[in-house]
Parts: sequence; C-alpha cells; structure tokens
Amino acid sequence: MKKILIVGCGAIGSLYAAHLARVAEVWALVRREEHARILNDRGIRVTGHDSFVAHVRATGDPQQLPEFDLAIVATKATHTREAFAPAARRCDRAAVISAQNGLGSEEVLAELTRGYLIRGITFMSGTRHSDCDVEFELDQYTWLGPFEPRGTPFSLVKESANLFVAGGLKAVALEDARPAQWSKLIFNASVNAVSALTRLPHSPEFADQSSPDALGRLLHDLIDEGKRVAAGCGVPLHEDPWEMNKIGAQTNHPTSMLFDVDHELPTEVDYLCGAIAREAGRAGVSAPLHSTMWRLIKGLEASWRHEKRYKATQRT
Amino acid sequence: MKKILIVGCGAIGSLYAAHLARVAEVWALVRREEHARILNDRGIRVTGHDSFVAHVRATGDPQQLPEFDLAIVATKATHTREAFAPAARRCDRAAVISAQNGLGSEEVLAELTRGYLIRGITFMSGTRHSDCDVEFELDQYTWLGPFEPRGTPFSLVKESANLFVAGGLKAVALEDARPAQWSKLIFNASVNAVSALTRLPHSPEFADQSSPDALGRLLHDLIDEGKRVAAGCGVPLHEDPWEMNKIGAQTNHPTSMLFDVDHELPTEVDYLCGAIAREAGRAGVSAPLHSTMWRLIKGLEASWRHEKRYKATQRT
Repeated sequence: MKKILIVGCGAIGSLYAAHLARVAEVWALVRREEHARILNDRGIRVTGHDSFVAHVRATGDPQQLPEFDLAIVATKATHTREAFAPAARRCDRAAVISAQNGLGSEEVLAELTRGYLIRGITFMSGTRHSDCDVEFELDQYTWLGPFEPRGTPFSLVKESANLFVAGGLKAVALEDARPAQWSKLIFNASVNAVSALTRLPHSPEFADQSSPDALGRLLHDLIDEGKRVAAGCGVPLHEDPWEMNKIGAQTNHPTSMLFDVDHELPTEVDYLCGAIAREAGRAGVSAPLHSTMWRLIKGLEASWRHEKRYKATQRT
Repeated sequence: MKKILIVGCGAIGSLYAAHLARVAEVWALVRREEHARILNDRGIRVTGHDSFVAHVRATGDPQQLPEFDLAIVATKATHTREAFAPAARRCDRAAVISAQNGLGSEEVLAELTRGYLIRGITFMSGTRHSDCDVEFELDQYTWLGPFEPRGTPFSLVKESANLFVAGGLKAVALEDARPAQWSKLIFNASVNAVSALTRLPHSPEFADQSSPDALGRLLHDLIDEGKRVAAGCGVPLHEDPWEMNKIGAQTNHPTSMLFDVDHELPTEVDYLCGAIAREAGRAGVSAPLHSTMWRLIKGLEASWRHEKRYKATQRT
C-alpha cells in the first residue's frame, strides 16, 4: 500500500486525506498536537457532496513520519516552507504535489526536497467545520502536471492522478499544467485582491462594466493585464479568467483573502498579484495594475501592525 | 459692513466664519437647527494657533438669509448641491468661493448661482471639538483665483483675499489658481485614496520606495500619472505633489477619506481620483491608476450597502 503524506489539514488537505485514505496509508502532518490527537481518535468525517469517515494517522512530530511515495502540500502559500521543511527529507523519493494557490510554492518545495515535484491546481472547495469535520462543497477537478525544472516524469503524474480517481476524486494529468495554473492564478489574483480591498464578496459588482467607475472594468483591466503577462511568459491559457469571473460573480462567495483581511492574517498576495508582477518583470512586460494591488494589500497588512503599535502606545 | 455667508460649519468653515466675523457681518447656514441655536447663543470659540470668541448669525432656514456680498462654501464636495441650493439666489450678486477639496465643486455652484465664482484652495487645518469649538492647527494660506468659465474679475478675487487678511488669515490672490488647485488635487487624490484602502494614516510607508512592493512606489506612480494628466490639460503645477507627500508622510496624520471609510460615510473620491480620471479622458491622456483607485473606493462604499443588506436578510 502506498504511503501518502498530507501537509496541512485545512478544508482542501482534509478532503484529499479522507479520500486517499480509501486506497492508501495516509499520514497527516499538522501543527497542533491537539489536532493530531483528534484526527487519530476520530478520523476525518466528510459531509456534503460525499458522506463517510476515513481513518488517518496524524502527528505534529515529524520524527514519527515514515518514508513516503506521495506528498500533498495543502497549506496556505505563506506557510509552505515552515510546514514542509520538517518532513522534506522523508519525501526525497516521493512525488510531491503543491495543491496551493498562486505561483511560487513549487520553487520553495524544490529547495527542500529531492522528490519529483508536481504542479497541482484544484477547483474543489469545502468548509472545515472542526478539526475532524469537513463539508465537501464543489466536487471539481484537480489538474496535475510536471514541475518542469525538476524534470518530473509524466508517468508519475498519471500515477498520482489515478490514485486521486481511485479515491473518488476528479483528477486529470496534463503534460503541461501551466496553462491551467495561470488561468486560475489570473482569476484568483484579480478577484481576491479586489475583494480584500473593497470588502465585497465575489458579487455581481465584479462583472458590472456599466459606468466608468464600475468595478467590473477594473476586473476586466486586471484580467487583461494578467493575460498579457501570461502571453509574455509564453504560457497559453486553459480557460478564460474573465469567463470564470463572470460565473463566480453570481455566487456572492466570500473570498479567502477577504477572510484573511477580516481576521488580520497574512494574505497570499505575494503568490498572486506579487507573482504576476514578478513574472511580468522577468518577461519584460509591464503590470502596473497588479503592482498596485500588491502594494495596497501589503500596505493594508502593515496597517495592522500600526494599530497594534498605536494601541501599545496608548496602553503605556 | 460686508455681509458674508458661510455654508457648512465644519472645521474649515468655522475657522473662516470666526476670523471674518472680526471684519464683516457673518452668517452661517447649517443643516441642524440645534447647531444654529448653539452658534447664535455662544458664538464660535477658536483655540490653538489663535484664541478668541466670535459672534456669528446662524440659521438652518434659508428664508432668513439676507443678500450677500461674499459666500464661502466649505462643505464636503459630496454635499455642495444640497447645501448651497437653498441659499444660491441670495448670492446672485456675491463673490462665491468654493473652499472644497478636489475638482468639480465650482461647476456645481455655477449651475445654482449667477454670482462670480472663485476657486479656493486652502492648506489651513483644524479640529472641530464641538458645534461651537474649533482648534486652529495649521495657520496656512488660502489661495484664491477666478473661475474662468464665469469670467470673474481679478479685482474681486483681490478684494476677497484682502478681507481674509484683514480677518487675520493668510490668503493670496492668483491670476490663475489652477496650478495651485491641481497641485493639491494630485496630492490629495493619491494620499487619501491609498490611505482609505490600506487603512494607514499618512505615514512613512507612503514615501518608502525600497522594494518592488513598497507603498511609496505606488504613490510615486500615482503622482506621476496625475502630473501627466495636468500637463495634458495644459495646467502647470504650483508645487510638486511628490514633495508634498514626502513631507506629509512624516506626520502620521489620519486622512479625511480614512475618517470617512472608518465611519462608512460617502467619500470625496468622485472629486479626487474620479476628477483626475474624467479630466484625463477629456484630454485624451490615460489614467489607469486613478481609475483603479476610483473603482476600488466606489466598490468599498458599495460593500457597506451589502453588509446592511445581509444584516437586513438575517434579521427577517
């Protein structure tokens, strides 16, 4: 039986862990010992689209981990290094999938492990109701493809996709996952940043272009700029991010970056708008709008430290 | 004795009213009857840079107003029409000064009165502690100049400036006030919008250009874009808004738009970033960054209605 490591058991990590536990020995590396204890005692309960309880082995102590055949990193992009580093050496002979938002996590993982890296892009979604309860909402595809700099063999990508399908998930192996990764990147960067700054969920305003000050015009301009950067980097797109935005704008879905901002948590903006601005710079394309969003959100994060500084001053 | 009308008795309106009451008969048109009663009973008490109590006549009822020689409109730019319209006919033979932020208020006033319009740009600042108490902070110049479309004679501008000086304020009459107005416009639009979106006061981050994601780079790009729009409109600048930003960034001053956003009040963005975007369109210059700020802040204002809608839904 294959041994699979899940790093980070949020909604997405829990969904992978539970489904793959049907066909493999699944380990979860989590930050809190309490979380590990609950997972070992109760397993993971999946509700919503699917309904079952899965047994997993969980630990907060990387010393207890065996050698793995497959690892899936499902933390926020901001936590990749600290979360994966302690387990990296147990994955030197594994396929290592980043199932994270944005661009740049594979590069961080590549510094830490000799394993074969795989780009993972997922449209699954879920809500984590407790440490051991996850609701499966959107039963969507995970796209998998080789991380080119590591020369990951396509056979290994297919093997991983087959394992996902055997566990009851939708997955496709792609010879080149970058067109899919960039489609989601451009969509995610634009929608999350605008949502975080306006405090709007992904709402009809995001597709409204009826007046010069309408928000849909900004989304359209941001997405057009993202497409120009992709073209400058030689990456064709798998889907049109503007069409993805028009569909999403009907959902009133609160975005993950809006959640972060509401809770004053570091956002993934460096891996979204920041990644597009960086890639633009490398390709010699200009990306003033993504740079603007990047700088505004870094400024917003800085304001939380300001407030603490002011509060600290007032307290003394 | 000249009769002067002050429309809007916030910090700036109160400072004009109190100083001019030393040399003229000053009337204040205010929204709340309670405010009028307190002003009539107690006058306006000025503290800070100066220290005195001035007698003014205040009313909430435009029927009580006499004919005026001079009027100063000192409301937020968003309130110009509703605040001035009831008094406009009493100012048909007056010089009418807009002492408001941004661009576009003179045009609104011109629709309402036959009086001679004057562009007013002030760098005074104050804090209103109560309906009849105002602290005079920055004892700075008010720049006055003719509103060209109305053909206001320069002699009238000089007469108004002399009245300000006689009352103890700093004022200068300029043959063309647009270079001063645009300098303040570009400074105000950039600083207020970035402050409102990041929730930062005007702090050192606004001048920090040390990294690609540093906020000072956004301010620099915004101000450069504003300068290109001014040039496209044929307006030279009186001061460099980037230098104004560098000085202001040392103050940690909370901006007026940050106050508005914190209190969910309509902002002046239509008269700041929106005005620059509109003027750019007329001049055939592109202004993508000001359009971006305009759309983000209109989206932020829309989020307050969203929240109320959600709350209303939850309540039922």
